[in-house]
Amino acid sequence: MTRFTDVAGQLTEQAIELPSWAFGNSGTRFKVFGSAGTARDPFEKIADAAQVHKYTGLAPTVALHIPWDKVENFEDLRKHAEDVGVALGTINSNTFQDDEYKLGALTHTDASVRQRAIDHHFECIDVMNATGSRDLKIWLAEGSNYPGQGDLRGRQDRLAESLATIYERIGENQRLVLEYKFFEPAFYHTDVPDWGTSYAQVSALGPNAMVCLDTGHHAPGTNIEFIVMQLLRLGRLGSFDFNSRFYADDDLIVGAADPFQLFRILFEVVRGGGYGNPDVAFMLDQCHNIEQKIPGQIRSVLNVQEMTARALLVDREALGQAQEQGDVLSANQIFMDAFYTDVRADLAAWRESRGLPADPMKAYLESGYQNKIETERVGGTQAGWGA
Amino acid sequence: MTRFTDVAGQLTEQAIELPSWAFGNSGTRFKVFGSAGTARDPFEKIADAAQVHKYTGLAPTVALHIPWDKVENFEDLRKHAEDVGVALGTINSNTFQDDEYKLGALTHTDASVRQRAIDHHFECIDVMNATGSRDLKIWLAEGSNYPGQGDLRGRQDRLAESLATIYERIGENQRLVLEYKFFEPAFYHTDVPDWGTSYAQVSALGPNAMVCLDTGHHAPGTNIEFIVMQLLRLGRLGSFDFNSRFYADDDLIVGAADPFQLFRILFEVVRGGGYGNPDVAFMLDQCHNIEQKIPGQIRSVLNVQEMTARALLVDREALGQAQEQGDVLSANQIFMDAFYTDVRADLAAWRESRGLPADPMKAYLESGYQNKIETERVGGTQAGWGA
Amino acid sequence: MTRFTDVAGQLTEQAIELPSWAFGNSGTRFKVFGSAGTARDPFEKIADAAQVHKYTGLAPTVALHIPWDKVENFEDLRKHAEDVGVALGTINSNTFQDDEYKLGALTHTDASVRQRAIDHHFECIDVMNATGSRDLKIWLAEGSNYPGQGDLRGRQDRLAESLATIYERIGENQRLVLEYKFFEPAFYHTDVPDWGTSYAQVSALGPNAMVCLDTGHHAPGTNIEFIVMQLLRLGRLGSFDFNSRFYADDDLIVGAADPFQLFRILFEVVRGGGYGNPDVAFMLDQCHNIEQKIPGQIRSVLNVQEMTARALLVDREALGQAQEQGDVLSANQIFMDAFYTDVRADLAAWRESRGLPADPMKAYLESGYQNKIETERVGGTQAGWGA
Amino acid sequence: MTRFTDVAGQLTEQAIELPSWAFGNSGTRFKVFGSAGTARDPFEKIADAAQVHKYTGLAPTVALHIPWDKVENFEDLRKHAEDVGVALGTINSNTFQDDEYKLGALTHTDASVRQRAIDHHFECIDVMNATGSRDLKIWLAEGSNYPGQGDLRGRQDRLAESLATIYERIGENQRLVLEYKFFEPAFYHTDVPDWGTSYAQVSALGPNAMVCLDTGHHAPGTNIEFIVMQLLRLGRLGSFDFNSRFYADDDLIVGAADPFQLFRILFEVVRGGGYGNPDVAFMLDQCHNIEQKIPGQIRSVLNVQEMTARALLVDREALGQAQEQGDVLSANQIFMDAFYTDVRADLAAWRESRGLPADPMKAYLESGYQNKIETERVGGTQAGWGA
Repeated sequence: MTRFTDVAGQLTEQAIELPSWAFGNSGTRFKVFGSAGTARDPFEKIADAAQVHKYTGLAPTVALHIPWDKVENFEDLRKHAEDVGVALGTINSNTFQDDEYKLGALTHTDASVRQRAIDHHFECIDVMNATGSRDLKIWLAEGSNYPGQGDLRGRQDRLAESLATIYERIGENQRLVLEYKFFEPAFYHTDVPDWGTSYAQVSALGPNAMVCLDTGHHAPGTNIEFIVMQLLRLGRLGSFDFNSRFYADDDLIVGAADPFQLFRILFEVVRGGGYGNPDVAFMLDQCHNIEQKIPGQIRSVLNVQEMTARALLVDREALGQAQEQGDVLSANQIFMDAFYTDVRADLAAWRESRGLPADPMKAYLESGYQNKIETERVGGTQAGWGA
Repeated sequence: MTRFTDVAGQLTEQAIELPSWAFGNSGTRFKVFGSAGTARDPFEKIADAAQVHKYTGLAPTVALHIPWDKVENFEDLRKHAEDVGVALGTINSNTFQDDEYKLGALTHTDASVRQRAIDHHFECIDVMNATGSRDLKIWLAEGSNYPGQGDLRGRQDRLAESLATIYERIGENQRLVLEYKFFEPAFYHTDVPDWGTSYAQVSALGPNAMVCLDTGHHAPGTNIEFIVMQLLRLGRLGSFDFNSRFYADDDLIVGAADPFQLFRILFEVVRGGGYGNPDVAFMLDQCHNIEQKIPGQIRSVLNVQEMTARALLVDREALGQAQEQGDVLSANQIFMDAFYTDVRADLAAWRESRGLPADPMKAYLESGYQNKIETERVGGTQAGWGA
Repeated sequence: MTRFTDVAGQLTEQAIELPSWAFGNSGTRFKVFGSAGTARDPFEKIADAAQVHKYTGLAPTVALHIPWDKVENFEDLRKHAEDVGVALGTINSNTFQDDEYKLGALTHTDASVRQRAIDHHFECIDVMNATGSRDLKIWLAEGSNYPGQGDLRGRQDRLAESLATIYERIGENQRLVLEYKFFEPAFYHTDVPDWGTSYAQVSALGPNAMVCLDTGHHAPGTNIEFIVMQLLRLGRLGSFDFNSRFYADDDLIVGAADPFQLFRILFEVVRGGGYGNPDVAFMLDQCHNIEQKIPGQIRSVLNVQEMTARALLVDREALGQAQEQGDVLSANQIFMDAFYTDVRADLAAWRESRGLPADPMKAYLESGYQNKIETERVGGTQAGWGA
Repeated sequence: MTRFTDVAGQLTEQAIELPSWAFGNSGTRFKVFGSAGTARDPFEKIADAAQVHKYTGLAPTVALHIPWDKVENFEDLRKHAEDVGVALGTINSNTFQDDEYKLGALTHTDASVRQRAIDHHFECIDVMNATGSRDLKIWLAEGSNYPGQGDLRGRQDRLAESLATIYERIGENQRLVLEYKFFEPAFYHTDVPDWGTSYAQVSALGPNAMVCLDTGHHAPGTNIEFIVMQLLRLGRLGSFDFNSRFYADDDLIVGAADPFQLFRILFEVVRGGGYGNPDVAFMLDQCHNIEQKIPGQIRSVLNVQEMTARALLVDREALGQAQEQGDVLSANQIFMDAFYTDVRADLAAWRESRGLPADPMKAYLESGYQNKIETERVGGTQAGWGA
C-alpha cells in the first residue's frame, strides 16, 4: 500500500498555470454579472493570480489572452509579474470576436480574412518573444450553424494551410498547441471538434505542434482519460485546460462536477509519464460566473493537487497484479482505495512544512486582500471577455 | 392516400407567433455580432415582424419580452402593431438579468428578492391588460452551478409559493404558461428542468396554468413528440417555443437540424387535437446569430408550414390499420410517405390562390425592405438581450 | 461539524434489498458469460443472497422476478429464505419475454394480449400474498422501434387502463410501483420513459401507486438527485433500483461509475425524509456480467452504506447558513467536506461493535463459500434471464 | 438546378453489401424473438440476401461473419452465391463470444489468449482467400467495465502489436479495416472507441489498413459527416456500416431515425470522392429485431439509394457560390432543396428502365418467397448470433 510520505516528494513538481481571464468577469449569453473588486486591467489580473500562488504554492505562472491582455509594453507586464511572484506563461490567441470572423477566421473562404487571422497569430508570437512564453495556444472557435453553410472539406484544407503558415513562424523552443472543442460557439459543425482532428492537424505540422485537451470539450459520455492515455502514447499531449462540466462546456471549478473523473484523468497522466513532465502543461480554463474569482481559483488548484495526491497513491504494483490475474473486483478496489483516501490532513501538514498555510483558502480570506481590492478598485471598467 | 387538396383547408388555421427578440441581435457568450438594419426599439421590431406576416400570412402576432420591449405607452405599441398588420401576443417575463437575481428570483432564499420578482410579473400582467394578451409566459432561468450551493427542495417549495401568488393575479381569460429547460444558464441544477416538474407545478396552480414546450430544452436523445402526446393527453400543453438544435439550446431555425423530428412533433400535435386548437399556441423562440433576421423568420414559419402540411398528409386510416395488424414496416412506410412528399409546389400554388406570393422569401428579398432598413436605421443602439 | 459518532445510530436503519437475478448470469446482447458456482434455481440464489447479508448486515431481503423465480411452492421458498437468514421482498413482473409481447403487453392493440399481461400481474399478486411481499414492481419494457409503428397516445391510454385493472387487485397494504426507463429494449419510444410519465400514471391510480427510480434509466446529463427531491416532495418515491452507468443502462455496481452522484442522491434522500422511511425501498438492480456475483453484491451494499454515511455527515446547519448567505463556495465546500471524509475505518469499527466482520469482503472471500459452490454446483443449468 | 436526369447515370455505380447476419435472428439482452421462415444456415442466408438484390439491383455482395457463417467448404458457398446471383464480400472476425475473451482478446494480458485471437484472424484470412474477399473487418468488442480493471495504455500497446501481426498476413490486394465503437459491450472503456484511435492504429500499420465507420457508433450529438469528410481527406475511409439509431447502437434500418443525417453523410461522401470509389465500401450492419428481415433489408438499400440520389441532386455550383458569398440562408436553402426533393417517382421509372420492378418492396411481397420460406423452413435452428 502506497503511503502519503511515499508520494509527498512528487507533489513539489506540480505547477498549474492560471488563466488571466478567470480574474475578469464572465457569464452566459444571458447575463454577465459583475462583482466587487474585479480586476480592471492585465496588471490587476496578475496581481490577483499571484495571490493564488502565494497561498498555495501551486500556480507560478499566468496565461495571457490576446487582445484581452494587450498592454503597451509587455516587458513591463513581465516585470510586474515577477514583482508579485509569478511569471507569464502561455499566450492564447483570439479570432472569434472581430466582425470579420463571423463566418470563420483561419478557415474563411476569403484569403484576406485568413491573412488577418494569421497576422494576429504573428502578433501573438511577438508577444511570446517579449514575455518569454513557450506556448502559443489556438482555440479555433470556428464552424457553422447550418448544414450547407460551409464546405467542411474546404475549411479543413484551409485550416491546414493557415496553421502551417503560423507554425513556420514559431521559434524552435516554442510550440503551437491546438485545442479541440465539441461545439460552441458554432452549433452545426466545428472545424476542430475532436482530438482526432487536432491530432491529424498537428501531426502534419511538425514535432513542435501539440494537442490541448480541455476537459469540458467532449460529447456526453466520452471517456476522457482514454484520450489522455492515447495522446501521451502518441507523444502529442501538449497541455490541459482543466475545468468541469455537467452538460456542455460549463467551465466550472475543476473537480466540482465529477471528482472521480478528475482522479481517473490524473491517474492516466501519472501512468503515461505526463506528470512532472514539462512537455505536458497543466492549466485552468474556467469561468467564475457567480462565485468569487480568487477563492474560486484557490479551490481549483487545491482540487487538482488533492486529486493528484490520490492518483499518486494508487498502489500500481498491486493494481498490475490484479489486472494480470483478471481479478476485476480487486483491481477496481485497489484503484478506489486511493480515490477514497482522505489526503487533506496530510496535505495541510505538508504545506506547513514548506512554509505555506495549512488552509490556503482560510489564509486568503483572512488576509484582507479581498476587502482591499473591493475598496480600492472603484471606477474603471471591470475586465471581461470583451474584444 | 391523403392528398394535398384534402388538407389544404386545414392550413388556413395555422398561426405562428413571432418573438420580438428575434429581430434584435443575439449571440453566444463569446460574441454578439451586429448586423446592418437591425431594429433599435420595439416599434421597429414589430414593423419587421409584420414583414414576415405580409409575405407568408402565417405570423399574425408578436410576443413581447419585458423589459426588453418596455415602452411608455403600450396602447401606442398595440396601435402600431395593428397599423402594420399584426397584433401583440404573449408577454414574456425576465428575472435573469438583474444583479439581485444572480442566485435566484422566484426561488431566492431572500423573501424581498422573491417579492421583487413577483412584482415584475405583476407588472407583466399589467402589460397584458394593456395589450390584450392572453398568456404570461415564465421561463425560469434559475438554478445553481455547484452541488450544495442551493437547497433543491427549499427552492422548489418557494417556487410553488411564488407561482401561486402570481397565478392569483391573472385574469380568468388569461393563462400562466411555465416553460421548462434542461440546463443553461445554470449548470448543476435548474429549478424547472423537465416537463414533469412544470406539469407538477402548474397542476397545483389551477386550470389556467399550462406547460410551454421549447423544442430545444431537452436532454440528448429525448423523444419530444412523446412529451407532446403526454401533455396533450393531460390537457396541459399550453404552447410551443419552436427552434432547432444539434447539441444544446442552439436556438437555430426550426426544422434546420432535424426536419424529421419536427414532422413527428407536428404529427402528434395533429393526432392529439392540438392543431387548430387555440389552447395550444405555436411560437418561435430563435436566435439568428449569423443569418439575416427577417429572412430567418420567414424560413422558420415556412418550415413549420411545410412540415404541418406533411403531417396532415399522413394517411391515418391506413396507418391505424397497419398498427393494429402489427405490420411494423408498413406502418413506418405510411408514416414516411407523408414525410417524403414534396409539398412545396402545392403550397406555392395554394399561397397564390390566397393572394400571397408563391415564394415568400424571394418576394421579401425583392421588396427592397432590407435595403431600406439598412439605409434608414443608422445611429441609435441595435436591440439585443440587454437588460 | 458533524462526526461519525453523531450519525452511527442512523446507520442501523439501512436495509438494501438484493435482486435474485444478480446471482444468475447476465450479459449483453453479444454474449452471456457463465461463471463457476452460479446458482441454478431460486433456492440457490437466495442462499447466495443470504451470504451478502451475513457479512454486511445490510441486505435482509431478496426481490423475486416472476417467472424467473417461479417455484412450485412459494411457502417453501419463504421458509428457505428464513432458514438462511433473509426474507422475500418485492415481486417483479415480466412481460417482455413471451413471443406475444413482441410489440407490447399492457399497451398492446390486441385486448387478449393485454389481458394475458394483466393476468400475469394477477399471478404476481398471488405470489405476493404467498410470500408476504408488499410491492409489485412493474418495469414496462414496451415501446416501438420505428416512427409510425405504434400510436403513442393509444398505447398510453391502454396502459392507463391496464394499470388500473391491476391496481384494483392489490391489497390495501400492498403497493404498485411503476418503473420508468429512458430507452431499451425499445429504441424509438418507450411507453414509460421518464419520471413525469410514471408520476402521471401512478397519480391517476391512487395512493398505493408509487414511482420506482432506477439510477441508470435517464438521458445523459440528467440531474437525478433533483428527481429524487421532486418525487419525495410529491410523495410518490416508492423505491430505488440502484446501479451505475457510464453511457446507457449499464447496470454496473452502484457507485462504481460516479460515486459523487451517489452521494448527492443519498443526500437528497436524507434531506427529503426518505432515509429510514419504510415508504422508500432501497434495492439493487445490477448485472455482474464479468465480475463475481456475490462479491459484486457485497461491494454494492458497502458502497451504498459508505455513501450514506458520508451523506449523513453533511453539516446541514452550516450548509443552510451558507446557502442563506449566498456563499456559493462555502456551501459547496461544506457539502464536499462530507463527501471527501473517509468513513471506511469508522465503519469497520462500527461493524465490529455489532458483531459483523470489519471487512465483509475479506470475510466472505476467506469463508470458503465460493469454493464450496464452485465445487458443488456442477451440472444443471445456471440461472439467467431466460424466460 | 441539378435534375434527376443529370444524376441518374451515377446511380448505376451504387452497390451496397448486405450482412449475412441480418437474415438471422437478433434482439436485445432481454429477448431475441424468432420469426417464421428465418434462415438456418449460411446457404439460406445468402439465398435470402439474393432476393434483396433481385428486386433492387443494389446489393450484389454479402458479408460473412466467422464463425457464424463457417461452412465446411467455402468454395461451395461461393458457388451457391453465384448461383443465386450474388457474390461473397467482406469477412468479419469475431473475438467476443469465446469464454477466453471475457476480459479481452487482441488486448488480453495473457499472450496465449492474444495468440488465439490472432489465429482466428489468420483463419479469417484463409476464408478470404477461399472466397475471394478483399476486406478483413475487425470490430474490436474489447474494453473494461470498471475503472482500474485494465491498464488502458498496456491494452492499446498490445492491440497495436496484435494488429501488426495480423496485418502482415493479409495479401497485397487485401485490406484490414478497423471499426471503432463508442461503447458496448464494454461500458467503462472500449479499446477502439473513436475514429481518432482507429486512425492512429491503422496509420501505424500501413497503406492497406483502413477505418470502418459504423453510423451508430458515436457519442450523442457527434457530427458524423464531419468524420466522413476527415477520413476521406486523410485517405483512410475504408468502409461504412450503415444503420440508424436514436440513442445508442440501436442498429435500426438506415435512414429510419434521422433521414437528414443520412443525406448529409452521403453528401460528404460525394463531395469527398467516396462515391463510385471502390476504396469506400458501403455495407449495412443492422438488426431486424421486430420487423421482417428481407423486407427490412430491401427498405434499407432503398433508403440509401433515395438519399444518394438526393445528395447527388445538390447544386454544388450554386452552393459553392453561396458559401463564397457568406450567404448562410441561401446556402442552406440550396442544400435543403435537394433533401426535400421527392425522388421516388423518378427512381421508380429509372428502375423500370433497367428491368427492375418500380416498387421493389411490393414485388418482393407479391413474389411468394416469404410464404415459401415460412412453409419450407420448418425444423432446425434459426440462425442468430450464437457462437
